[in-house]
Amino acid sequence: MYRPDIKLLDCTVRDGGLINNWQFSDEFVKKVFEALVKSGVDYMEIGYKSSDKYFSRDENGKWKFCYDDDIKEIIDGVDTEMKLSAMADIGRIDYEDIPPKSESVLSMIRVACYAKQVDKAISLTQHCQDKGYETTINLMAVSKVSERDLDEALEDLSKSDVPTVYLVDSFGAMYSEQIQFLAKKYLEALPGKQIGIHTHNNQQLAFANTIEAIICGVNRLDSTIYGMGRGAGNCPLELLLAFLKNPKFDIRPIIEIIQEQFIPLKAKVEWGYHIPYMITGILNEHPRSGMKAMSEETLPNLRDFYEDLFSPEPLD
Amino acid sequence: MYRPDIKLLDCTVRDGGLINNWQFSDEFVKKVFEALVKSGVDYMEIGYKSSDKYFSRDENGKWKFCYDDDIKEIIDGVDTEMKLSAMADIGRIDYEDIPPKSESVLSMIRVACYAKQVDKAISLTQHCQDKGYETTINLMAVSKVSERDLDEALEDLSKSDVPTVYLVDSFGAMYSEQIQFLAKKYLEALPGKQIGIHTHNNQQLAFANTIEAIICGVNRLDSTIYGMGRGAGNCPLELLLAFLKNPKFDIRPIIEIIQEQFIPLKAKVEWGYHIPYMITGILNEHPRSGMKAMSEETLPNLRDFYEDLFSPEPLD
Repeated sequence: MYRPDIKLLDCTVRDGGLINNWQFSDEFVKKVFEALVKSGVDYMEIGYKSSDKYFSRDENGKWKFCYDDDIKEIIDGVDTEMKLSAMADIGRIDYEDIPPKSESVLSMIRVACYAKQVDKAISLTQHCQDKGYETTINLMAVSKVSERDLDEALEDLSKSDVPTVYLVDSFGAMYSEQIQFLAKKYLEALPGKQIGIHTHNNQQLAFANTIEAIICGVNRLDSTIYGMGRGAGNCPLELLLAFLKNPKFDIRPIIEIIQEQFIPLKAKVEWGYHIPYMITGILNEHPRSGMKAMSEETLPNLRDFYEDLFSPEPLD
Repeated sequence: MYRPDIKLLDCTVRDGGLINNWQFSDEFVKKVFEALVKSGVDYMEIGYKSSDKYFSRDENGKWKFCYDDDIKEIIDGVDTEMKLSAMADIGRIDYEDIPPKSESVLSMIRVACYAKQVDKAISLTQHCQDKGYETTINLMAVSKVSERDLDEALEDLSKSDVPTVYLVDSFGAMYSEQIQFLAKKYLEALPGKQIGIHTHNNQQLAFANTIEAIICGVNRLDSTIYGMGRGAGNCPLELLLAFLKNPKFDIRPIIEIIQEQFIPLKAKVEWGYHIPYMITGILNEHPRSGMKAMSEETLPNLRDFYEDLFSPEPLD
């Protein structure tokens, strides 16, 4: 599949940092950056843009905050067209903490929000655009949103200036048919905008669903090296690079860094396909109970775990 | 997805045995059998039907041979409609070593063959049908077969009595578009026959490709518990059970046995997504070089491994 409009965004450090509170060494982040530059990836999302009045700098590594001085130490001396991105969550960043683009090495700010927060997200992206950044809005957890509420959010987005909107399968709950249905809905509701896709691998469908979205006309693709990401992880970048035929992409630097950094890291830090995440995925639930189960010294009884999530108290 | 024609075949012991030469304890196989019975799976493929003149009984466990006396010890005392199947490879079984169905607890013999062996496979399945068995032919490695040769094999199969033909992605090389193309081809070329699907997980697409085949009209689905199988493994049964809405299926006994047997087993016996298998998959190669790489004490340089497979000596 070679479509020049396709752009890849790697969010290994941003999404992977959700596992270890962004406690990555500078050397690791630098190696990720250099491998991504060599592989031809278009954007590297290096972390979250948050205010340190909301989060402790002791508990969280620097990629929770993405201060420009910290980023500069990573990218210093490398000449590249790859752009840098950071994600902002509604309510975790103050407008005045975002520097003007002219003072920042970041090119893009992506705003993640729930459907009910879409007006706040539009306001924040407008602010970022006014300061000179590219922006996107990533509408999280839409597998739990009623179609009426989703349509309303998409209508608000269609009237906004935000140029790119992401379809996000936060719970790894979607099958190809849901991706097809939603990708077509986003494309129709948002004429003139680019649509992106961000998947989770609870059901081993993150890569397949990304392909399905590409087939539907989605051009902005999120993935992470070796699938690293919270819980079951994300669409693996290496698989996407092998699938895409765009001559500018090169899988080899990614194979190299997987061997050097990610295989040893995966022996220490847990992500990927595990039954607790599979269960939250098939039941379309937030992975938090799966993450709790995985963090215990021994797994809870998984059949009970399934039954409890599947049939809570009858409510009527 | 609830389509009454859909039938599930679990080949955990047969395909998983390729990893450990079928050195499973009777207790393990019995537990697998009982969990499958409870889950509503239609067929359990318990191993290979081979002649012990071709294979050592010391090196290979009993499920390489599938003698009836051994099977009876497993199923004894369990009342079930689940049928038992064994796989036969061309040239590894003599016709006279297959007992008449009336003397066997096996219901089905599946013959695996390459496209060039299809006439031999038809002859062997005819022999098995004459002895009273259900049969299938599983056409292996079709991702390497020219369309002309495949069409010829399908034409031969269309004239045969074999009722079911499997589309097999032996190398885990196919994307949804290849599955769609081939599933449609098989369905059109083989009117009146059932089509099956058997996938491998080199690119994390085994489950997604099985769904794609279902959407195209394929009704016979192979999978294994926790995806256990040679190399990258197969479509995980638990994911398929969650996807299918047929009320007879129950995922809970499979979750239970995964926790009790397969999570501990996976800590000792290796299968699943690993970069050497990913590389053979994306390059549409037999996984043997990947298995060799994975069996070494330390992995070889994976970038070199990729380059060697990708660009062998120019031949002209």
